[in-house]
Amino acid sequence: MSQPPLTFQDVILNLQQFWSRQGCVLWQPYHTEVGAGTMNPATALRVLGPEPWNVAYVEPSIRPADGRYGENPNRWQRFYQFQVILKPDPGNPQEIYLQSLVALGIDPARHDIRFVEDNWASPALGAWGLGWEVWLDGQEITQFTYFQQAGGMPLEPVSVEITYGLERILIALQEVDTFLDIRWNEKLTYGQLQLQGEREYCGYNFETADVDRLRSLFAEYEAEAQSCLAAGLVLPAHDYVLKCSQTFNLLDSRGAVGVADRAALFGRMRDLSRRVSEGYLAQRQAAGFPWQEAETAQELSAGATPVPAVQPLRAAVPFLLEIGTEELPAGDLDSAIEQLRQAVPALLADLRLGHGAVRVLGTPRRLAVIVDALEPMQQELVSLVKGPPADRAFDAQGRPTAAATGFARGKGLTVEALQVREMDGGRYAVAEVRQAGRPAGEVLVEALPRLVAGLKFEMSMRWNATGVAFSRPVRWLMALHGEQVVPFAFAGLTAGNRTRLMRFAEPEAVAVASAGDYLASLERAAIVLDPAARKADIAAQVEALAAQAGGAVPADDDLLNEVANLVEQPTALLGSFDPAFLALPREVLVAVMRKHQRYFPVEKAGRLLPHFIAVRNGRSQSQDSVVLGNEHVLRARFSDAAYFVKRDRQQRLEEYVPRLATLTFQEKLGSMLDKVGRLERLSAWLAGELGLDAAASAAATRTAHLCKADLVTGMVIEMTSLQGEVGRQYALADGEPEAVAEAIFEHYLPRNAADRTAASLPGLAVGLADRLDSLMGLFAAGLQPTGARDPFALRRTAIGLVQNLVERGLRFDLRRGLHHAAEGLPIPVPESAEPEALAFIASRQSGLLLADGKRHDVVEAVLAAQAYDPAGAARAVEQLESATRVETWDVTLQAYARCVRITRSQPAAPAFNDKAPMEAAEQGLLAALKAAEVRPRRAGSVEDFLAAFQPMIPAVTKFFEEVLVMADDPAVRSNRLALLHRIVALADGVADLSKLEGF
Amino acid sequence: MSQPPLTFQDVILNLQQFWSRQGCVLWQPYHTEVGAGTMNPATALRVLGPEPWNVAYVEPSIRPADGRYGENPNRWQRFYQFQVILKPDPGNPQEIYLQSLVALGIDPARHDIRFVEDNWASPALGAWGLGWEVWLDGQEITQFTYFQQAGGMPLEPVSVEITYGLERILIALQEVDTFLDIRWNEKLTYGQLQLQGEREYCGYNFETADVDRLRSLFAEYEAEAQSCLAAGLVLPAHDYVLKCSQTFNLLDSRGAVGVADRAALFGRMRDLSRRVSEGYLAQRQAAGFPWQEAETAQELSAGATPVPAVQPLRAAVPFLLEIGTEELPAGDLDSAIEQLRQAVPALLADLRLGHGAVRVLGTPRRLAVIVDALEPMQQELVSLVKGPPADRAFDAQGRPTAAATGFARGKGLTVEALQVREMDGGRYAVAEVRQAGRPAGEVLVEALPRLVAGLKFEMSMRWNATGVAFSRPVRWLMALHGEQVVPFAFAGLTAGNRTRLMRFAEPEAVAVASAGDYLASLERAAIVLDPAARKADIAAQVEALAAQAGGAVPADDDLLNEVANLVEQPTALLGSFDPAFLALPREVLVAVMRKHQRYFPVEKAGRLLPHFIAVRNGRSQSQDSVVLGNEHVLRARFSDAAYFVKRDRQQRLEEYVPRLATLTFQEKLGSMLDKVGRLERLSAWLAGELGLDAAASAAATRTAHLCKADLVTGMVIEMTSLQGEVGRQYALADGEPEAVAEAIFEHYLPRNAADRTAASLPGLAVGLADRLDSLMGLFAAGLQPTGARDPFALRRTAIGLVQNLVERGLRFDLRRGLHHAAEGLPIPVPESAEPEALAFIASRQSGLLLADGKRHDVVEAVLAAQAYDPAGAARAVEQLESATRVETWDVTLQAYARCVRITRSQPAAPAFNDKAPMEAAEQGLLAALKAAEVRPRRAGSVEDFLAAFQPMIPAVTKFFEEVLVMADDPAVRSNRLALLHRIVALADGVADLSKLEGF
Repeated sequence: MSQPPLTFQDVILNLQQFWSRQGCVLWQPYHTEVGAGTMNPATALRVLGPEPWNVAYVEPSIRPADGRYGENPNRWQRFYQFQVILKPDPGNPQEIYLQSLVALGIDPARHDIRFVEDNWASPALGAWGLGWEVWLDGQEITQFTYFQQAGGMPLEPVSVEITYGLERILIALQEVDTFLDIRWNEKLTYGQLQLQGEREYCGYNFETADVDRLRSLFAEYEAEAQSCLAAGLVLPAHDYVLKCSQTFNLLDSRGAVGVADRAALFGRMRDLSRRVSEGYLAQRQAAGFPWQEAETAQELSAGATPVPAVQPLRAAVPFLLEIGTEELPAGDLDSAIEQLRQAVPALLADLRLGHGAVRVLGTPRRLAVIVDALEPMQQELVSLVKGPPADRAFDAQGRPTAAATGFARGKGLTVEALQVREMDGGRYAVAEVRQAGRPAGEVLVEALPRLVAGLKFEMSMRWNATGVAFSRPVRWLMALHGEQVVPFAFAGLTAGNRTRLMRFAEPEAVAVASAGDYLASLERAAIVLDPAARKADIAAQVEALAAQAGGAVPADDDLLNEVANLVEQPTALLGSFDPAFLALPREVLVAVMRKHQRYFPVEKAGRLLPHFIAVRNGRSQSQDSVVLGNEHVLRARFSDAAYFVKRDRQQRLEEYVPRLATLTFQEKLGSMLDKVGRLERLSAWLAGELGLDAAASAAATRTAHLCKADLVTGMVIEMTSLQGEVGRQYALADGEPEAVAEAIFEHYLPRNAADRTAASLPGLAVGLADRLDSLMGLFAAGLQPTGARDPFALRRTAIGLVQNLVERGLRFDLRRGLHHAAEGLPIPVPESAEPEALAFIASRQSGLLLADGKRHDVVEAVLAAQAYDPAGAARAVEQLESATRVETWDVTLQAYARCVRITRSQPAAPAFNDKAPMEAAEQGLLAALKAAEVRPRRAGSVEDFLAAFQPMIPAVTKFFEEVLVMADDPAVRSNRLALLHRIVALADGVADLSKLEGF
Repeated sequence: MSQPPLTFQDVILNLQQFWSRQGCVLWQPYHTEVGAGTMNPATALRVLGPEPWNVAYVEPSIRPADGRYGENPNRWQRFYQFQVILKPDPGNPQEIYLQSLVALGIDPARHDIRFVEDNWASPALGAWGLGWEVWLDGQEITQFTYFQQAGGMPLEPVSVEITYGLERILIALQEVDTFLDIRWNEKLTYGQLQLQGEREYCGYNFETADVDRLRSLFAEYEAEAQSCLAAGLVLPAHDYVLKCSQTFNLLDSRGAVGVADRAALFGRMRDLSRRVSEGYLAQRQAAGFPWQEAETAQELSAGATPVPAVQPLRAAVPFLLEIGTEELPAGDLDSAIEQLRQAVPALLADLRLGHGAVRVLGTPRRLAVIVDALEPMQQELVSLVKGPPADRAFDAQGRPTAAATGFARGKGLTVEALQVREMDGGRYAVAEVRQAGRPAGEVLVEALPRLVAGLKFEMSMRWNATGVAFSRPVRWLMALHGEQVVPFAFAGLTAGNRTRLMRFAEPEAVAVASAGDYLASLERAAIVLDPAARKADIAAQVEALAAQAGGAVPADDDLLNEVANLVEQPTALLGSFDPAFLALPREVLVAVMRKHQRYFPVEKAGRLLPHFIAVRNGRSQSQDSVVLGNEHVLRARFSDAAYFVKRDRQQRLEEYVPRLATLTFQEKLGSMLDKVGRLERLSAWLAGELGLDAAASAAATRTAHLCKADLVTGMVIEMTSLQGEVGRQYALADGEPEAVAEAIFEHYLPRNAADRTAASLPGLAVGLADRLDSLMGLFAAGLQPTGARDPFALRRTAIGLVQNLVERGLRFDLRRGLHHAAEGLPIPVPESAEPEALAFIASRQSGLLLADGKRHDVVEAVLAAQAYDPAGAARAVEQLESATRVETWDVTLQAYARCVRITRSQPAAPAFNDKAPMEAAEQGLLAALKAAEVRPRRAGSVEDFLAAFQPMIPAVTKFFEEVLVMADDPAVRSNRLALLHRIVALADGVADLSKLEGF
């Protein structure tokens, strides 16, 4: 480019002009702090309802927690968005957007521009949408979203939201390294204009803002919002919701919002937001939606477009279906291919269309079905139709009666064509009806819409007035049978013979002469249609580049699969980063590369090298500048981590503990610091209970003190998923004992269903303490999960507790644990809370065991008896299930069952008197019982119970054969029942065998 | 124009492009509510310090009290400013600004564009500046200000602030009637986008906002601002000051800010603002003012520019000085002309330059001095210099000595040229030294800068690096002596021979060949240079138009003078308004026309006609559209008044009384409603004290109840100056008795020094009650004025109280009044408060009397004795002053003085015993005294005192001649002193004659 790149202010002017030409209202930034342009009512409210709305505006966006005192190259707490809303979908918003980049002087041919799945949800606004981050050489420069819901209401029509990150674009455009160096105009830089403010706001957000005052402001804003809503004042109410949101963000950046707190505050904001949206919509409705115009109520049909007749072909030729989409998420691409592999053969069979091999291939922008040798016509359908009984159809002479002729005529046959067959246990006149096959094109035009509509996705979206849903918008359809177009209609489109190639390629679209030419067309455009081929291609390129960097890429099939689904024309590139970043925790570096950037880390001998491999979409034009862009992004991300570690490490981990006082755990249960106090007490007690040695006990106590401290470090506030991990690292750096560092990490284990449990006893003990405290505390506070609502993730908490005990086989009486936890709580504990908490944990364990394939009745039997001891219960379930598989099980069960059944309806018997006169069988049973009772048994062990009980079975059998339990003499009867009660009690604490099948 | 006019959004884009081309940073609206773009730190802070700064941005501006629910055509609580800051002054900001209007498609030739004095001050920001409103056909479209101070600090350099009112410009551009109809883009109007919001915010601002919560928010914002300042966080602190300001504005629009309250809140905001500014400046200073560039530190000199030599002329020719300025305020134009009329002849005399007539003329853009026949050279200066004494200068032979020759040589003379003269009582050798006159041009080049710099204005301003001050910037200088330029330098300019004509005229500037051609040059350009001629011209045009409208314009010399000073090329125009507006109070209509718009109202037989006459600057091009513009403005203003009256009249005046509870009078003294309670009580008491009859008493009580109610009506909240007036109108409309309506109005009288006092007794009584309550209350609360600070205007209160009593001659004992007021206060009253309040009132009366030319000693004498009764005191001062002018006054004074002097140093005498033995003279004096004592006297009357005392004088004289007061016998002495004390006491309550001169 000979012209100097645009300045910051020129970029804004250009975008304003560009979008004004597209018919957008140019709007202004909002008059109160917002986290994003989305919160401006020009988006948040105008997307509601049916009226068209096209708008563009700058929005200075404030996200207090994102501040880095201006030290990060591209992450500031305040930055400038350029926001565009297109409502309804104009049909080609991606293309218009890309043209706007061209208008800014970004030459798409020189860059790697990608649409990378990124869905958006704002709990505070009750809104969500599906879309992408747009990446320019790896850097996110835009959020592109199809709004599906706002204010808790589905959007009709859907709005397209395009949010440019202006600074990121300028960094690329001006080829500078940081926000600071962006030229704002000819004279001044962004840094000169903004750095001082950025530093000061960070100081305010992280250090100076007064938490108590913020809480009080939140409450006042909320109250004003309520008053406004009560008075029907929608916009003023919206302002106060925004003020709540900004205040919440400040509280958050002060580290003053605990998990429970967060859920509650979000709930309050969401409720207000919903009411604001409803109010707005009601107003517009009352006004008759005045902006709604006849011509905008597009009459797109989901498949009803009249379709020209299709000429039948003469021979079997290939068939091609291409569904052209905006970029599909990686997972949806896999899923759609898999679904089509099932559905296409089934459909063709159903349509009676003979065919050869079916291949389903795809890239992020296209799903392709290639059917070899598809017959030109349906097969004929032959069916037998039962007519009158043979003896009524034909007279004795075998001549057809009037019934037969009538029947034959009704089927379009001559009476001679009728046959007589045995059917349904009788003889009938039968007509063989032949339905001629229709041309393939004709039936496909009817059937293909159903095929496409039948694809299901984990999350799907609507985009236009047809209301059809798909993973992402479908933008073109191609269907060819040989050379013939199969012009089926879907989502307002009609299938043709044109496919689109790479964007900005020459040409961007081509006509495909026949289905057989399709693959060649794509190959000519260097699009790799086959996912497997792409994956292999990428793997080879990555391997080669890693070798070039002197290392290798660790096997990572998940990442390879994902990357293969993000490109149509993969070109790998090797980038580097400053080796100084290698001092950061490996987990952080890898997480950033893999999760955030989909880069392959490069390592050598188990150590990371300062390189990464990215895969761009497109040929290797201007590869150097694309590499630079990607390196810039990674540097910015690593800087961010380095920034946090540096700041955090200015204090020892233990110095963070007092700050936990500002982090609310839950309003009634106090701060996280209060919780830590309880954990210290509980952990010490558990160390005794679980028999930890002195060293482990000490480690547990220290761990309890430190385990939550990292929650108020910058690193964890930023990347919550690193909680525990960061604590471990910082503890090690502080010189804490390794056992403590490990236990800090382990007390969170397992973090999810696939995670491991704690390996060390201190980690286990503190983890138990934490979970007991949370469960008991929240149940005591009346905050147990209800229905699907589980705001404090207590289900996960209970599962983690169970898994730790079970996997280690650690016997522990939860009743004692919960009771001890209850004693430490700052609130009164209702009597029902402990048993309820216990039942809740038991039901989680039940779920785990069932998911593991255990028998429902076995699980129920065991948990009914020993839910308080998850490890014992788990073992008992195994044992009981084994026992039931033994051939003689029924005998055992029946013997025991007889004892239970006869006693079950009787009042509790008095203690058995073994001095009373007894019959022989009675005496025999008593002797057998006593022998069983004195057998050493492990608590809760099914095996031990059976080992004790089974020897008694003969005596039990004999007893019931020879002795009348229900003797007339009450004393005798009572003593016999007492004897049986003692037998039944052998299973106490083991299992309630009456829950078993066959009992 | 063939092109359609620009849309709202295009106007913004055009302005952004225009100012970007001028080198401005394009900035964004601020992220919290502001009342004006000035509050954006891009103005409020960046104008501080020496660094250059040029910026332009849109600012959605929010002024809650200005809301009219969207019912006013051009007044909304939220509107869009476009703000430009140019720092330093580029030298031609008016011209650049006018070019920006051209860029928007405003053809200046078709419009009346005026710069009308409007100075700006923001107490909350500690800022002020001088400048103008820019009027487009009578409509204010821009504020144009030279910032002189911000954050309490003088600005160096000065910044030019240009604030466009975008909607007003669009109304003119698109020729629509209201904001509602402005086309925002091709599709939507301003009303469609904004009306709903405007209504809702009005509802919030006036009805829903919770006063208690707002107060609490204010306090929290203030506390956060303090924390930020303590932590050195300037911008976050600034944000909180803005939030305080917005909250204050909301409180205000809820009618919840009383006078005293307002002052206190402003004080708190000003203090914060000042600290923010200081903090910002300190930061920039610490950073070394990094944007300051060498080339911007313009080296403009205030008069030191080297000046080319001037060739002397040969004969007396006219001289012309023209000082070309940006538009001078009307008052400053008068003042400057007057000053020059004095200063020019004095200067020329001082310079020894002979000349003919001196004329000083001027228009808003030029001050012109025309001197007939100014001599080409200074007159020679002849002076005698005394040398050595004659007897030392010449020897006995009369030959010059060495002393003489030395002296002569020293003076550049030959010794023969020495003379001998009598001087200073001796004979001396004397040299006659002749200083040759210098050419006029040469001395004028030196002297004219002083002349211009010597002009003083009530408020003057700086604008460029020379730091010179003037009423408004001086932009060109012309000085011609005949054909010769007198190139003196001032304010960075050098005088030349070019003058500027009307803006956008053809040509806009011309060279003037010689001083004598100047008037003709201006005449050719149709500029009326002579203010008297302009005034006559305008008067004639106005009269003609008024006649055309079937009416006349009431004589109004003030307005005529002002208007004549606002134009150079006056063209009157006749406009009309909707006769429906005539239903509004006449005072409102007239005030709007005269004060706001400088229009002449037209009336017929004492009743207003629905017409007005405006005077534009310029010829009558496109007169129709100019008339339309002016009519639009007036309609908007009248609509505003109509809006208030309509809304206010939905309730009776008495229904407003309870709302006074929300209006704080003063924190300790409660609300205005509390005050009303006190006024009711005090007024009832005063009615008795002042002897009102039953009807008047009842009226006073009702008045006390209603007199403050209009303070919470919209009309008075909007135009505070109408308080009382509005109450009267509404009371009449409600059917209240006329006496009550009148008294509501009158209780505020006198409103200023020139105003009349209350005519009715109820008005007077309630006014007294109001003032007694304020004075006593605020003194009791410790809030008396200190030094120059008088935030509650107690000086004016005391003066009003005195004037009412004095003008009506109403005797009233303030001691009783204050005491009664004190008893009604809600706070304890310190013992000293009553006498302090009384002394304060006395000192105000003293000031009034002195200003009235009364003798200082007389005033002091009287007030020392009867300050508690202003009317009596005033009369006594008159009488005493008369008495002192009588020839025999000294006799009287001395007689009385002898009695005083001898008793003054003695202890208070016991009661006189008239049974004691007495000498004859003593008895004579006693008899005279008794005769005096029994004379009927009016309280405080000097005349009556003198009438009583003067007959005693012979007896006094005789007594002192014959009786020894200080007798040896203590009893005798004491009794004689007691007698004299009784004489002295005759003046008690009249005057302390010892304060008089000559005593």
